[in-house]
Amino acid sequence: METVNHLTAEDMAVKVLLKSWTTQVDRITDLVAGLSENDLRKEIAPGKNTGIYILGHMVAVHDALLPLLGFGTKLYPELEQIFVKSPDKSGHSFPSVADLKKQWSEINDLLLQHYSRLDFEAWLTRHEAVSPEDFAKEPHRNKLNVLISRTTHMSYHHGQLVLLKNKAQD
Amino acid sequence: METVNHLTAEDMAVKVLLKSWTTQVDRITDLVAGLSENDLRKEIAPGKNTGIYILGHMVAVHDALLPLLGFGTKLYPELEQIFVKSPDKSGHSFPSVADLKKQWSEINDLLLQHYSRLDFEAWLTRHEAVSPEDFAKEPHRNKLNVLISRTTHMSYHHGQLVLLKNKAQD
Repeated sequence: METVNHLTAEDMAVKVLLKSWTTQVDRITDLVAGLSENDLRKEIAPGKNTGIYILGHMVAVHDALLPLLGFGTKLYPELEQIFVKSPDKSGHSFPSVADLKKQWSEINDLLLQHYSRLDFEAWLTRHEAVSPEDFAKEPHRNKLNVLISRTTHMSYHHGQLVLLKNKAQD
Repeated sequence: METVNHLTAEDMAVKVLLKSWTTQVDRITDLVAGLSENDLRKEIAPGKNTGIYILGHMVAVHDALLPLLGFGTKLYPELEQIFVKSPDKSGHSFPSVADLKKQWSEINDLLLQHYSRLDFEAWLTRHEAVSPEDFAKEPHRNKLNVLISRTTHMSYHHGQLVLLKNKAQD
Protein backbone atom coordinates (compact mmCIF):
# COMPACT_ATOMS: atom_id res chain seq x y z
CA MET A 1 0.00 0.00 0.00
CA GLU A 2 1.37 3.42 -0.88
CA THR A 3 0.40 6.61 0.87
CA VAL A 4 0.05 9.87 -1.01
CA ASN A 5 3.65 10.64 -0.13
CA HIS A 6 4.85 7.47 -1.85
CA LEU A 7 5.98 5.94 1.39
CA THR A 8 4.68 2.40 1.84
CA ALA A 9 2.69 1.55 4.94
CA GLU A 10 5.60 -0.64 5.99
CA ASP A 11 8.09 2.21 5.64
CA MET A 12 5.73 4.50 7.52
CA ALA A 13 5.47 2.03 10.39
CA VAL A 14 9.28 1.89 10.65
CA LYS A 15 9.45 5.69 10.52
CA VAL A 16 6.93 6.04 13.35
CA LEU A 17 8.73 3.45 15.50
CA LEU A 18 12.15 5.03 14.99
CA LYS A 19 10.69 8.44 15.76
CA SER A 20 9.36 7.08 19.03
CA TRP A 21 12.83 5.72 19.86
CA THR A 22 14.65 8.95 19.04
CA THR A 23 12.08 11.02 20.92
CA GLN A 24 12.77 9.03 24.08
CA VAL A 25 16.55 9.23 23.58
CA ASP A 26 16.37 12.98 23.02
CA ARG A 27 14.18 13.54 26.07
CA ILE A 28 16.62 11.74 28.31
CA THR A 29 19.62 13.46 26.72
CA ASP A 30 18.03 16.87 27.25
CA LEU A 31 16.92 16.08 30.79
CA VAL A 32 20.34 14.79 31.83
CA ALA A 33 22.06 17.76 30.17
CA GLY A 34 20.11 20.00 32.54
CA LEU A 35 21.07 18.03 35.66
CA SER A 36 24.36 18.59 37.48
CA GLU A 37 26.66 15.85 38.75
CA ASN A 38 25.28 16.70 42.18
CA ASP A 39 21.64 16.37 41.03
CA LEU A 40 22.39 13.00 39.47
CA ARG A 41 24.07 11.71 42.62
CA LYS A 42 20.74 12.09 44.44
CA GLU A 43 18.14 9.38 44.86
CA ILE A 44 15.01 9.79 42.72
CA ALA A 45 12.99 9.19 45.92
CA PRO A 46 14.11 8.36 49.47
CA GLY A 47 15.80 4.96 49.53
CA LYS A 48 15.45 4.44 45.76
CA ASN A 49 17.99 4.42 42.92
CA THR A 50 20.27 7.37 42.25
CA GLY A 51 20.15 9.27 38.98
CA ILE A 52 23.68 8.25 38.03
CA TYR A 53 22.84 4.57 38.52
CA ILE A 54 19.80 4.89 36.28
CA LEU A 55 21.83 6.73 33.64
CA GLY A 56 24.58 4.08 33.76
CA HIS A 57 21.93 1.36 33.62
CA MET A 58 20.49 2.80 30.42
CA VAL A 59 23.94 3.19 28.86
CA ALA A 60 24.72 -0.46 29.62
CA VAL A 61 21.35 -1.70 28.32
CA HIS A 62 21.73 0.25 25.08
CA ASP A 63 25.34 -0.93 24.67
CA ALA A 64 24.01 -4.49 24.88
CA LEU A 65 21.75 -3.76 21.91
CA LEU A 66 24.80 -3.76 19.62
CA PRO A 67 25.37 -7.52 19.90
CA LEU A 68 21.69 -8.33 20.49
CA LEU A 69 20.67 -6.77 17.19
CA GLY A 70 23.70 -8.10 15.33
CA PHE A 71 25.42 -4.75 14.92
CA GLY A 72 28.73 -5.66 16.57
CA THR A 73 30.29 -5.93 20.00
CA LYS A 74 29.68 -3.77 23.06
CA LEU A 75 31.72 -0.61 23.38
CA TYR A 76 31.77 -0.64 27.20
CA PRO A 77 31.24 -4.24 28.35
CA GLU A 78 32.48 -3.40 31.86
CA LEU A 79 29.27 -1.44 32.52
CA GLU A 80 27.11 -4.57 32.63
CA GLN A 81 28.52 -5.77 35.93
CA ILE A 82 28.10 -2.36 37.56
CA PHE A 83 24.74 -1.25 36.18
CA VAL A 84 22.83 -4.37 35.13
CA LYS A 85 24.04 -7.30 37.20
CA SER A 86 24.44 -5.25 40.37
CA PRO A 87 21.91 -3.01 42.09
CA ASP A 88 22.68 0.58 43.04
CA LYS A 89 24.91 1.12 46.09
CA SER A 90 26.58 -2.26 45.63
CA GLY A 91 30.03 -0.82 46.31
CA HIS A 92 31.11 -0.55 42.67
CA SER A 93 32.76 2.72 41.78
CA PHE A 94 30.92 4.49 38.98
CA PRO A 95 32.31 6.25 35.93
CA SER A 96 31.89 10.03 36.08
CA VAL A 97 28.61 11.57 34.96
CA ALA A 98 30.54 13.29 32.14
CA ASP A 99 31.82 9.94 30.87
CA LEU A 100 28.36 8.35 31.07
CA LYS A 101 26.80 11.23 29.16
CA LYS A 102 29.45 10.87 26.45
CA GLN A 103 28.90 7.09 26.24
CA TRP A 104 25.13 7.57 26.12
CA SER A 105 25.43 9.82 23.07
CA GLU A 106 28.07 7.71 21.38
CA ILE A 107 26.12 4.46 21.69
CA ASN A 108 22.81 6.01 20.64
CA ASP A 109 24.40 7.64 17.59
CA LEU A 110 25.83 4.29 16.58
CA LEU A 111 22.54 2.48 17.12
CA LEU A 112 20.69 5.01 15.00
CA GLN A 113 23.17 4.54 12.16
CA HIS A 114 22.49 0.81 12.23
CA TYR A 115 18.73 1.26 12.64
CA SER A 116 18.56 3.45 9.54
CA ARG A 117 19.84 0.58 7.41
CA LEU A 118 17.05 -1.82 8.41
CA ASP A 119 13.86 -1.97 6.38
CA PHE A 120 10.52 -3.27 7.64
CA GLU A 121 11.23 -6.90 6.84
CA ALA A 122 14.66 -6.74 8.47
CA TRP A 123 13.04 -5.49 11.69
CA LEU A 124 10.91 -8.64 11.71
CA THR A 125 13.94 -10.94 11.62
CA ARG A 126 15.27 -12.65 14.72
CA HIS A 127 17.48 -11.03 17.31
CA GLU A 128 20.69 -12.74 18.39
CA ALA A 129 19.42 -14.10 21.71
CA VAL A 130 17.14 -16.55 19.91
CA SER A 131 18.34 -19.45 17.77
CA PRO A 132 17.04 -19.95 14.21
CA GLU A 133 15.24 -23.10 15.43
CA ASP A 134 13.46 -21.33 18.29
CA PHE A 135 12.68 -18.35 16.10
CA ALA A 136 10.84 -20.60 13.66
CA LYS A 137 8.50 -21.47 16.52
CA GLU A 138 8.48 -18.05 18.19
CA PRO A 139 8.67 -15.45 15.39
CA HIS A 140 7.65 -12.64 17.72
CA ARG A 141 11.19 -12.74 19.13
CA ASN A 142 12.32 -10.30 16.48
CA LYS A 143 14.29 -7.06 16.33
CA LEU A 144 11.11 -4.98 16.32
CA ASN A 145 10.14 -6.46 19.65
CA VAL A 146 13.52 -5.49 21.09
CA LEU A 147 13.21 -1.94 19.73
CA ILE A 148 9.80 -1.41 21.32
CA SER A 149 10.83 -3.04 24.57
CA ARG A 150 13.87 -0.76 24.92
CA THR A 151 11.79 2.28 23.95
CA THR A 152 9.39 1.64 26.82
CA HIS A 153 12.38 0.87 29.07
CA MET A 154 13.72 4.38 28.42
CA SER A 155 10.34 5.91 29.06
CA TYR A 156 10.07 4.06 32.39
CA HIS A 157 13.35 5.49 33.61
CA HIS A 158 12.63 8.90 32.11
CA GLY A 159 9.60 9.07 34.39
CA GLN A 160 12.00 8.50 37.28
CA LEU A 161 14.86 10.80 36.26
CA VAL A 162 12.44 13.67 35.81
CA LEU A 163 11.89 13.57 39.58
CA LEU A 164 15.41 14.96 39.99
CA LYS A 165 14.30 18.23 38.43
CA ASN A 166 13.40 20.68 41.15
CA LYS A 167 10.12 21.78 39.69
CA ALA A 168 9.09 18.65 37.84
CA GLN A 169 5.54 17.65 38.68
CA ASP A 170 4.94 14.79 36.29
CA MET B 1 6.10 -11.77 3.26
CA GLU B 2 4.97 -14.83 5.18
CA THR B 3 6.77 -16.30 8.13
CA VAL B 4 6.86 -20.03 8.72
CA ASN B 5 3.81 -19.64 10.94
CA HIS B 6 1.81 -18.15 8.06
CA LEU B 7 1.53 -14.81 9.76
CA THR B 8 2.49 -11.96 7.47
CA ALA B 9 5.22 -9.56 8.58
CA GLU B 10 2.52 -6.89 8.82
CA ASP B 11 0.36 -9.03 11.10
CA MET B 12 3.42 -9.88 13.18
CA ALA B 13 4.26 -6.21 13.61
CA VAL B 14 0.72 -5.52 14.85
CA LYS B 15 0.94 -8.50 17.20
CA VAL B 16 4.21 -7.25 18.70
CA LEU B 17 2.87 -3.72 19.15
CA LEU B 18 -0.36 -4.88 20.80
CA LYS B 19 1.63 -7.18 23.06
CA SER B 20 3.73 -4.23 24.16
CA TRP B 21 0.55 -2.29 24.93
CA THR B 22 -1.08 -5.09 26.92
CA THR B 23 2.15 -5.77 28.79
CA GLN B 24 2.22 -2.19 30.03
CA VAL B 25 -1.48 -2.25 30.92
CA ASP B 26 -1.06 -5.51 32.83
CA ARG B 27 1.99 -4.27 34.72
CA ILE B 28 0.15 -1.20 35.93
CA THR B 29 -2.98 -3.20 36.76
CA ASP B 30 -0.93 -5.67 38.80
CA LEU B 31 1.08 -2.96 40.52
CA VAL B 32 -1.99 -0.95 41.46
CA ALA B 33 -3.79 -4.08 42.67
CA GLY B 34 -0.99 -4.53 45.20
CA LEU B 35 -1.19 -0.95 46.49
CA SER B 36 -3.70 0.12 49.12
CA GLU B 37 -5.80 3.28 49.02
CA ASN B 38 -3.37 4.62 51.60
CA ASP B 39 -0.31 3.76 49.48
CA LEU B 40 -1.84 5.45 46.46
CA ARG B 41 -2.64 8.61 48.41
CA LYS B 42 1.11 9.09 48.98
CA GLU B 43 3.40 11.17 46.78
CA ILE B 44 5.77 9.17 44.58
CA ALA B 45 8.58 11.42 45.89
CA PRO B 46 8.49 14.42 48.25
CA GLY B 47 6.52 17.25 46.66
CA LYS B 48 5.68 15.25 43.52
CA ASN B 49 2.42 13.76 42.23
CA THR B 50 0.38 11.31 44.28
CA GLY B 51 -0.28 7.77 43.10
CA ILE B 52 -4.01 8.36 42.84
CA TYR B 53 -3.48 11.41 40.63
CA ILE B 54 -1.22 9.42 38.30
CA LEU B 55 -3.76 6.59 38.16
CA GLY B 56 -6.60 9.00 37.42
CA HIS B 57 -4.44 10.72 34.81
CA MET B 58 -3.87 7.44 32.99
CA VAL B 59 -7.57 6.53 33.14
CA ALA B 60 -8.49 9.92 31.63
CA VAL B 61 -5.81 9.67 28.91
CA HIS B 62 -6.93 6.17 27.93
CA ASP B 63 -10.59 7.23 27.96
CA ALA B 64 -9.67 9.97 25.47
CA LEU B 65 -8.34 7.29 23.12
CA LEU B 66 -11.90 6.18 22.40
CA PRO B 67 -12.79 9.33 20.39
CA LEU B 68 -9.20 9.92 19.22
CA LEU B 69 -9.06 6.54 17.52
CA GLY B 70 -12.63 6.72 16.25
CA PHE B 71 -14.02 4.07 18.57
CA GLY B 72 -16.77 6.17 20.17
CA THR B 73 -17.22 8.70 22.93
CA LYS B 74 -15.49 8.89 26.30
CA LEU B 75 -16.98 6.86 29.13
CA TYR B 76 -15.90 9.29 31.87
CA PRO B 77 -15.44 12.74 30.29
CA GLU B 78 -15.49 14.42 33.71
CA LEU B 79 -12.04 12.97 34.46
CA GLU B 80 -10.30 15.21 31.92
CA GLN B 81 -10.78 18.38 33.97
CA ILE B 82 -9.51 16.72 37.15
CA PHE B 83 -6.63 14.63 35.84
CA VAL B 84 -5.46 16.17 32.56
CA LYS B 85 -6.33 19.87 32.58
CA SER B 86 -5.51 20.30 36.27
CA PRO B 87 -2.35 19.39 38.14
CA ASP B 88 -2.41 17.31 41.31
CA LYS B 89 -3.56 19.04 44.51
CA SER B 90 -5.65 21.54 42.56
CA GLY B 91 -8.54 21.24 44.97
CA HIS B 92 -10.64 18.87 42.86
CA SER B 93 -12.11 15.96 44.77
CA PHE B 94 -11.01 12.66 43.32
CA PRO B 95 -13.05 9.52 42.64
CA SER B 96 -12.19 6.66 44.99
CA VAL B 97 -9.26 4.41 44.20
CA ALA B 98 -11.74 1.54 43.81
CA ASP B 99 -13.69 3.46 41.17
CA LEU B 100 -10.55 4.42 39.28
CA LYS B 101 -9.31 0.83 39.26
CA LYS B 102 -12.67 -0.29 37.87
CA GLN B 103 -12.63 2.42 35.18
CA TRP B 104 -9.04 1.57 34.27
CA SER B 105 -9.99 -2.04 33.58
CA GLU B 106 -13.24 -1.19 31.82
CA ILE B 107 -11.63 1.30 29.42
CA ASN B 108 -8.65 -0.92 28.65
CA ASP B 109 -10.89 -3.92 27.97
CA LEU B 110 -12.94 -1.82 25.56
CA LEU B 111 -9.83 -0.44 23.83
CA LEU B 112 -8.45 -3.93 23.35
CA GLN B 113 -11.71 -5.07 21.74
CA HIS B 114 -11.44 -2.22 19.24
CA TYR B 115 -7.70 -2.74 18.70
CA SER B 116 -8.24 -6.37 17.80
CA ARG B 117 -10.41 -5.34 14.85
CA LEU B 118 -7.72 -3.19 13.22
CA ASP B 119 -5.32 -4.70 10.73
CA PHE B 120 -1.92 -3.27 9.83
CA GLU B 121 -3.21 -0.90 7.18
CA ALA B 122 -5.96 0.37 9.47
CA TRP B 123 -3.34 1.25 12.08
CA LEU B 124 -1.66 3.45 9.48
CA THR B 125 -4.81 5.50 8.88
CA ARG B 126 -5.32 8.90 10.43
CA HIS B 127 -6.45 9.55 13.97
CA GLU B 128 -9.36 11.90 14.65
CA ALA B 129 -7.30 14.88 15.80
CA VAL B 130 -5.95 15.40 12.29
CA SER B 131 -8.06 16.42 9.28
CA PRO B 132 -7.95 14.43 6.01
CA GLU B 133 -6.21 17.41 4.37
CA ASP B 134 -3.47 17.66 7.00
CA PHE B 135 -3.07 13.90 7.07
CA ALA B 136 -2.32 13.90 3.34
CA LYS B 137 0.67 16.11 4.15
CA GLU B 138 1.57 14.51 7.51
CA PRO B 139 0.82 10.79 7.16
CA HIS B 140 2.81 9.95 10.30
CA ARG B 141 -0.13 11.31 12.32
CA ASN B 142 -1.73 7.89 12.29
CA LYS B 143 -3.29 5.52 14.81
CA LEU B 144 -0.07 3.55 15.15
CA ASN B 145 1.69 6.68 16.32
CA VAL B 146 -0.97 7.19 18.98
CA LEU B 147 -0.70 3.58 20.13
CA ILE B 148 3.07 3.81 20.60
CA SER B 149 2.89 7.19 22.22
CA ARG B 150 0.36 5.99 24.80
CA THR B 151 2.38 2.82 25.39
CA THR B 152 5.45 4.86 26.34
CA HIS B 153 3.22 7.18 28.37
CA MET B 154 2.12 4.22 30.49
CA SER B 155 5.69 3.08 30.92
CA TYR B 156 6.73 6.57 32.06
CA HIS B 157 4.14 6.57 34.82
CA HIS B 158 4.75 2.93 35.66
CA GLY B 159 8.34 3.90 36.51
CA GLN B 160 6.86 6.41 38.95
CA LEU B 161 4.09 4.31 40.51
CA VAL B 162 6.57 1.55 41.28
CA LEU B 163 8.21 3.94 43.76
CA LEU B 164 5.16 3.51 45.98
CA LYS B 165 6.09 -0.10 46.57
CA ASN B 166 8.02 -0.39 49.81
CA LYS B 167 10.81 -2.48 48.48
CA ALA B 168 10.91 -1.33 44.86
CA GLN B 169 14.42 -0.44 43.77
CA ASP B 170 13.94 0.20 40.09
